[in-house]
Amino acid sequence: MVSENQLRKYAKLAVKMGVNVQKGQLLVISADVRDHEFVALCVEEAYKAGAGQVYVNWSSEHDALCNYQYMTKEALSDIPQWKYDQRKYAQDKGGCFLNVMSSTPGLLKGIDSEKIMAAQLAASKMFMPLQSYTMNNEGQWSIVALPSSGWAKKVFPDLSEEEGIAKLWEAILMSVRVSEDNDPIAEWEHHNEQVLHYSKVLNEQNFKALHFKNKLGTDLTVELVKNHVWAGGCEKAGNGAIFNPNMPTEENFCMPAKYGTNGRVVATKPLSYQGTLIDGFVLEFKDGKVVNYHAEKEMQALKNLVEFDEGSSYLGEVALISYDSPINNTGILFYNTLFDENASCHLALGRAYPMNVKGGTEMTEEQLKEAGANFSMTHVDFMFGSSDMHVEGIKEDGSTVTVFEAGNFVI
Amino acid sequence: MVSENQLRKYAKLAVKMGVNVQKGQLLVISADVRDHEFVALCVEEAYKAGAGQVYVNWSSEHDALCNYQYMTKEALSDIPQWKYDQRKYAQDKGGCFLNVMSSTPGLLKGIDSEKIMAAQLAASKMFMPLQSYTMNNEGQWSIVALPSSGWAKKVFPDLSEEEGIAKLWEAILMSVRVSEDNDPIAEWEHHNEQVLHYSKVLNEQNFKALHFKNKLGTDLTVELVKNHVWAGGCEKAGNGAIFNPNMPTEENFCMPAKYGTNGRVVATKPLSYQGTLIDGFVLEFKDGKVVNYHAEKEMQALKNLVEFDEGSSYLGEVALISYDSPINNTGILFYNTLFDENASCHLALGRAYPMNVKGGTEMTEEQLKEAGANFSMTHVDFMFGSSDMHVEGIKEDGSTVTVFEAGNFVI
Repeated sequence: MVSENQLRKYAKLAVKMGVNVQKGQLLVISADVRDHEFVALCVEEAYKAGAGQVYVNWSSEHDALCNYQYMTKEALSDIPQWKYDQRKYAQDKGGCFLNVMSSTPGLLKGIDSEKIMAAQLAASKMFMPLQSYTMNNEGQWSIVALPSSGWAKKVFPDLSEEEGIAKLWEAILMSVRVSEDNDPIAEWEHHNEQVLHYSKVLNEQNFKALHFKNKLGTDLTVELVKNHVWAGGCEKAGNGAIFNPNMPTEENFCMPAKYGTNGRVVATKPLSYQGTLIDGFVLEFKDGKVVNYHAEKEMQALKNLVEFDEGSSYLGEVALISYDSPINNTGILFYNTLFDENASCHLALGRAYPMNVKGGTEMTEEQLKEAGANFSMTHVDFMFGSSDMHVEGIKEDGSTVTVFEAGNFVI
Repeated sequence: MVSENQLRKYAKLAVKMGVNVQKGQLLVISADVRDHEFVALCVEEAYKAGAGQVYVNWSSEHDALCNYQYMTKEALSDIPQWKYDQRKYAQDKGGCFLNVMSSTPGLLKGIDSEKIMAAQLAASKMFMPLQSYTMNNEGQWSIVALPSSGWAKKVFPDLSEEEGIAKLWEAILMSVRVSEDNDPIAEWEHHNEQVLHYSKVLNEQNFKALHFKNKLGTDLTVELVKNHVWAGGCEKAGNGAIFNPNMPTEENFCMPAKYGTNGRVVATKPLSYQGTLIDGFVLEFKDGKVVNYHAEKEMQALKNLVEFDEGSSYLGEVALISYDSPINNTGILFYNTLFDENASCHLALGRAYPMNVKGGTEMTEEQLKEAGANFSMTHVDFMFGSSDMHVEGIKEDGSTVTVFEAGNFVI
């Protein structure tokens, strides 16, 4: 099992390397109540690191599930104004946001999909004006994960609860580079250098498009926006603080041109969305838009995703990760995007990150749209990497460079 | 240890007999994150009882203590507007409020008393306009208790944590009338009839004043307001729902005339206030006002209480409880007002309950003041009952009736 020493190291890593809370800054931690012991360590480490105030925004999966079971669709969609004001208050204060995540995959299985859609649409509409704070890296933000019994049960259905949680802890701590006797912060600094290396190479190539092909049936061309910027690993917030939005992270990601994706993509991992697990799904794109789609499991949830709003049927992100990555090499299917997306090439339906185009974080919405950025109230990654993935980079003059061979970076 | 069956019975009791949540009504539960398993049962039982929505307002003693340790006085006093709006939203919706309490007595021992005072004054000022909702019984509210390791350690310093918690569970479940095979709701209905009996008798006597005297040095006359109403046990909310504000409850309480208390009172149990334990204290009253006071322990906290605002140096409640009461007979000093006040005659400094004067819940603040009601941002009970307490009721014509002899009701 995880030791007190490892737990505290992980908390310190989340606070210093994840959000990198600054002297006097407000830190908001979002967490499930079941994780209060780990959060207590994060609160202590944040104050030791100089935080001016730490506020924890608690939630409970148990209560959320009860709400979906018992509340009406109307009541679920009626989100009080103070919830918006609460978030806005923290953003106006220049706060940073740490999300401690331990979600049960498929928690809402069996819940009326109309209820879920209505509630999530209402929340997205309300919080839309506040999205740019994190999408634009105005303030620091980070997501870290903890095991939960529901998550462990899904990942290791044949193990006892205790064994499953222990295995999940092991995988999480490996992937975030925490062990009994290392210095995880130093390891992250080294790791970030490696991720930045690929971004640099890809930026130098300045491809017009990427072409993905494998034997499962993926045959997809993704045009990139002009003046695109490959990013990955750590990022820089408006206040100058360097932070790591995702822990773990292995990806290099870029901005697709909204109307420039064509072909077919076959997902290779299930997608945890709106409390369900969409599985065995295929999307077809024409001029950027999803024109056809099918899922073997949870087709209705996939429909909700694609039809969420105008922008959710267009891409907002394309990301490259070697198949032979540390997380994928665990052989574990996590049923959790934070892990599965860092084990596989992926795309995101929905809103693009402004940082993926030169000067993007300074642009207005109109300027970003002109640059080719997609807008949406949502941003959902899905995985399509495979051991035989071949990726060609296509240059402006039509010449090509092989980026991936047999699933891995070769550039 | 407590069984799953007892826990669920207790949760059901809190929801149905405590707040008595109505069909379609909003229930707000306030609780520490460490108590999430019990709260989960409350949420389920509330929905089963027909609640329209259950919202849990989580807090954490651990984080609160960190905040006091690390935040500045200014930051602690700067309470965001959304916290007021959050509470107001629930009151405007006609919600009911369940407080699940497991506080560690003396949690804030050693924290700068100025910080505590500033933070609590700021909170009291902000929430003052919302106080009347519960003080006036506009909506239902209830407080129930759970053991915590910090509380158990204080009450049973010589026991192991596990044994202490088990003993505290035993005492709590006894006092709220939950056992393995009884029907606690039926027992509460019966108990409430007994409490109402004393209120009826005291109302019929219509005393002008009460005179308290014991060998410890208490010698106090408390004048009651004209048209006073003795209350106790269950109460009726604005929507007609019958609820029990305190679980347990053994008290009959009434409204002192603001300027009519004279003499000296010696406290007989320590008082948990602002995270400290005030002990060995004496108050002297002249024409209603505390004119002299002393505490052997935590004198500064007692000063903070008496000088909190104008009204905190006058009484807002006088309550009668037999020394030979079920809670007192446990022989346990709980260091917690919910229990200790129901084991002992007590007084409260601060705001009076409008229901303790005829027509009071319909009166304006001015009318209540004219009737003799005290106003304050605070309301803090302290205990002074003893095994030799003698209480005489003094009638308008000067005649007297013995109410307590040797600590117990004899009327």
